[in-house]
Amino acid sequence: MPPLVTPLQTSGQLDRSGLDRLIAHVLAGGVHGLFMLGTSGEGPNLPADLQREVVARTCQVVAGRVPVLVGVSHTVLAEAVSLARASFDLGASAAVITPPYYLPASQDELWEWFRRFDEQLKRPFYIYNIPSLTKVSIGESVVARCLSLENFRGLKDSSGDLHYFKRMQRILSATKRHSLFIGPEELLAESLLAGGDGGVSGGANVWPELYRDIFLQAQSGNWADVNRLQASVLEISARIYSLVTPFATVTQPIKLALSELGICGATLASPQLPWKEADVSALRSAIKAMQLDARFGAKPLPSTPAIHG
Amino acid sequence: MPPLVTPLQTSGQLDRSGLDRLIAHVLAGGVHGLFMLGTSGEGPNLPADLQREVVARTCQVVAGRVPVLVGVSHTVLAEAVSLARASFDLGASAAVITPPYYLPASQDELWEWFRRFDEQLKRPFYIYNIPSLTKVSIGESVVARCLSLENFRGLKDSSGDLHYFKRMQRILSATKRHSLFIGPEELLAESLLAGGDGGVSGGANVWPELYRDIFLQAQSGNWADVNRLQASVLEISARIYSLVTPFATVTQPIKLALSELGICGATLASPQLPWKEADVSALRSAIKAMQLDARFGAKPLPSTPAIHG
Amino acid sequence: MPPLVTPLQTSGQLDRSGLDRLIAHVLAGGVHGLFMLGTSGEGPNLPADLQREVVARTCQVVAGRVPVLVGVSHTVLAEAVSLARASFDLGASAAVITPPYYLPASQDELWEWFRRFDEQLKRPFYIYNIPSLTKVSIGESVVARCLSLENFRGLKDSSGDLHYFKRMQRILSATKRHSLFIGPEELLAESLLAGGDGGVSGGANVWPELYRDIFLQAQSGNWADVNRLQASVLEISARIYSLVTPFATVTQPIKLALSELGICGATLASPQLPWKEADVSALRSAIKAMQLDARFGAKPLPSTPAIHG
Amino acid sequence: MPPLVTPLQTSGQLDRSGLDRLIAHVLAGGVHGLFMLGTSGEGPNLPADLQREVVARTCQVVAGRVPVLVGVSHTVLAEAVSLARASFDLGASAAVITPPYYLPASQDELWEWFRRFDEQLKRPFYIYNIPSLTKVSIGESVVARCLSLENFRGLKDSSGDLHYFKRMQRILSATKRHSLFIGPEELLAESLLAGGDGGVSGGANVWPELYRDIFLQAQSGNWADVNRLQASVLEISARIYSLVTPFATVTQPIKLALSELGICGATLASPQLPWKEADVSALRSAIKAMQLDARFGAKPLPSTPAIHG
Repeated sequence: MPPLVTPLQTSGQLDRSGLDRLIAHVLAGGVHGLFMLGTSGEGPNLPADLQREVVARTCQVVAGRVPVLVGVSHTVLAEAVSLARASFDLGASAAVITPPYYLPASQDELWEWFRRFDEQLKRPFYIYNIPSLTKVSIGESVVARCLSLENFRGLKDSSGDLHYFKRMQRILSATKRHSLFIGPEELLAESLLAGGDGGVSGGANVWPELYRDIFLQAQSGNWADVNRLQASVLEISARIYSLVTPFATVTQPIKLALSELGICGATLASPQLPWKEADVSALRSAIKAMQLDARFGAKPLPSTPAIHG
Repeated sequence: MPPLVTPLQTSGQLDRSGLDRLIAHVLAGGVHGLFMLGTSGEGPNLPADLQREVVARTCQVVAGRVPVLVGVSHTVLAEAVSLARASFDLGASAAVITPPYYLPASQDELWEWFRRFDEQLKRPFYIYNIPSLTKVSIGESVVARCLSLENFRGLKDSSGDLHYFKRMQRILSATKRHSLFIGPEELLAESLLAGGDGGVSGGANVWPELYRDIFLQAQSGNWADVNRLQASVLEISARIYSLVTPFATVTQPIKLALSELGICGATLASPQLPWKEADVSALRSAIKAMQLDARFGAKPLPSTPAIHG
Repeated sequence: MPPLVTPLQTSGQLDRSGLDRLIAHVLAGGVHGLFMLGTSGEGPNLPADLQREVVARTCQVVAGRVPVLVGVSHTVLAEAVSLARASFDLGASAAVITPPYYLPASQDELWEWFRRFDEQLKRPFYIYNIPSLTKVSIGESVVARCLSLENFRGLKDSSGDLHYFKRMQRILSATKRHSLFIGPEELLAESLLAGGDGGVSGGANVWPELYRDIFLQAQSGNWADVNRLQASVLEISARIYSLVTPFATVTQPIKLALSELGICGATLASPQLPWKEADVSALRSAIKAMQLDARFGAKPLPSTPAIHG
Repeated sequence: MPPLVTPLQTSGQLDRSGLDRLIAHVLAGGVHGLFMLGTSGEGPNLPADLQREVVARTCQVVAGRVPVLVGVSHTVLAEAVSLARASFDLGASAAVITPPYYLPASQDELWEWFRRFDEQLKRPFYIYNIPSLTKVSIGESVVARCLSLENFRGLKDSSGDLHYFKRMQRILSATKRHSLFIGPEELLAESLLAGGDGGVSGGANVWPELYRDIFLQAQSGNWADVNRLQASVLEISARIYSLVTPFATVTQPIKLALSELGICGATLASPQLPWKEADVSALRSAIKAMQLDARFGAKPLPSTPAIHG
């Protein structure tokens, strides 16, 4: 399930045809769902009306073929509920909410935040652990208490702390109704070995088949194949994401790679600034180098659009 | 200048008469300005319409007697500009903006954030350094570049790092047009010795005269008096703010103290939870103990409304 | 390979017979090596003569049956070299050195630190990444440069960051001569999937067969068995290590578990304080509960001394 | 009181004549004491025999003219006690001890660490708060408990957190027998306003009169003069210490400035690496620029050797 980036025009408005092409690209790559307006999607940095426009267009284009999850994180609970309601009205399948991210929340406040969200929304939702951005980690007791919430569906963990992930797996696997997804794609294979239910992998915007195949091979217990494919993810991370400066997200390299593929432009939402020309050149070289390696995808590379450009 | 808390009804709506009483209280205490919707004012946790209602009511009640500054921090620049414009239309004197607070911004991104804010707003504004909440500290080069922005008026520093404060003081004091305010009231006296222009002190919601007198005595060079008064601030901090759990703001104890004075209720905006009864009792005892000490204000205590209730 | 704890008498002196029993216990459990004077072994908190006594006795008892690695970390390079030389004279197989741990080292300083160590020692050594205690993480470029050092044998990573581990694995696996071990046992299975060469697992002091069997099953590609066994490690972590307060190491619960088995006492080296009676009771209950679960070891539980006591 | 740097030969041995000249230089500048083997003195990175040699020579040269304090920090309490005893035998006035710095200590462990140190040493000592290097801050309750220790004399605080400093001041000023010193010289003036007893200022190695005069003017209540002199300290910090890379100490620029004065060489103890030539040139220019400004010292500049070079 890719955390879809949000194609933008240089004016800051939504690039609708770019979004259409991106959705077509990842659906062709066999992804099992879309996560809109997450961190990679720059959700918290987009104006409220643009957020709704993204959800509307996505649901229209996807037309029910895969679930559409929508990030609704905000520092004001009422605004998060408002975006979530609008999203469900537009056809979304579930909302995804982080802890509030200005004041760091205590564990009691986290629980109350999610409880009230459930109470006010009355629709399926996931919680999203990303302590590097929200300052606090959602603790075991909060996740355990969330199991009692009628519409709670699971957790997306972007902590990068696999031990945390595994502790959450122990809690969530006690039921059959809850799912656990991992954020950092560098740990996708290991998260699946540890009982995770899949990844929300930024690279799946560009190379959706690669991430899908890791998931499918893990489901079949082919761990040698999983490892071989995961090595390509590490290669992407080492050659491309490593170009990202500390603090920055992978949204810029992903949008640049997509622009190489002719899918959409590389414009970012404020406050993020575009990369400098030297970094862009380094990225182009890195992508080209990986193409030569021809190691992507479980199938031969020609099936991966990223390679054909 | 107190960072005014936002009186709320238990329903979450604005407590207008509480706000009226609070403004009357601090103006009677001689404050030199009001800072609305800051961190203590729970600005980033209030819905957009309630934010505007706070500004409207405040400007109406203050009626130009002192400047009204408005915190407009947001993760979306357009929303910050929108609140700032609305505030100026309602009579505000200046906007106050933090770095964006979901993704941590690079220094280049900070500069661009403030530059665009200036460009789009075209009205006086301050920048607000609070790295514990925005994850990044506004660097010297960014502050130095801000001097070139036409509407830039200065900095409020809530870092608690007095060396940082002094480095900023060197930059900002090069002109006569820029001001530097300190957040943590525990360092008010020292910030004034170091050339600061005043404090945005949470305790001034409750005991406005105390903080005003520290400022006035420092202006007169009466450092022994400054020290004597500052000891009362440390006393407040040690007895009251120390009751606050890690992560939590001083908004709860301030609102509780104000409720003891009959000024407004103690309701907090989500995600903050009300204190437990034991903590509330401890606070009441602490306030009572300080009253007996009768050490507040440059003048004898009876002149401080906080004591008379 | 267990990071052996150091049995101490209540006087602070070495408990020689306790050490003898502990070595016999883990060798009977089939461990592939011993790591002495590491973090779990309280190495940096033991006086120089006691450190040498530990190494001497261990080498004597082990008598070459498995390799003996010795942690020689210090803030003074000459002291680290001195302990390493003494250890080799006493029969040790390799030295293990962390970054210096008072001043945080730059990457250039780390490289120089390891280069000089190699130059002065001229014997096999591993480097040990534990940024939570040394403040800095050993970067990729430093590890890559270490490959050129004649006596460099590999890395022990206790960062808990599996993505870091995997980046190091890419570097170290380029040769056949270097090894990569993981510290946190909660990630042992996943580290093996990721190409790691084994674990330095605190729990292997108590339940050596469990950790050995995870290693052996992973070598055979039996990932389902690996997962089943790893679940017992998580159980140990969740029930026992979770009793440890923030900051504290697992040395206390390990020594308490060993004292339950009659192997050695639970005395810690200064500055660590013994647990309070309530925590000790909780630990005893936790161990008893796990015994009832009878889930340890690839073979039935009776073969695990920990259970029989 | 300067935290004296340790002059070293390029071989790593003590530069005795350099040390002699340095002591003569700072005594001529009117310092009220010497702090040997602290962080600036690279104490924890010097071999045990060299540490003793430094203390011996210093006590011999000082010959009782001012108190000699000795940093004895170590990860092994017995080693700290050993160095402290040796120092007293050699003529030292007091020992200074930090928390242990490999494992982070709990507050209970800190208390026990200091209590045992007092018990075993039976001689005057100060505790030293430097959480950036020891990972933990010495809490209020620990300092309060230390008041009961017979030989406890006070605290040196290098946290850079003036609010912390002031909380400690409240505790320590309750007696007349305890002192409170500040580390970061950028806060020296403010620490004195807040009731501190002086500074342990790295720059006093080079410009002892400047720091002495700040102290003397503050004692006389001449806060305008204090401020004027403190501005020179900020100037030193902004022009010289700002050249230091993150993580590094000010020992290198101090030693380089001393070498400009012909007092001692600039060699550092491992693990610190010497500055690159470009940084050294920048430092030389910065010192030269300050000389032109001629703003150092309460008296005219010619009396400050640093200016004459």
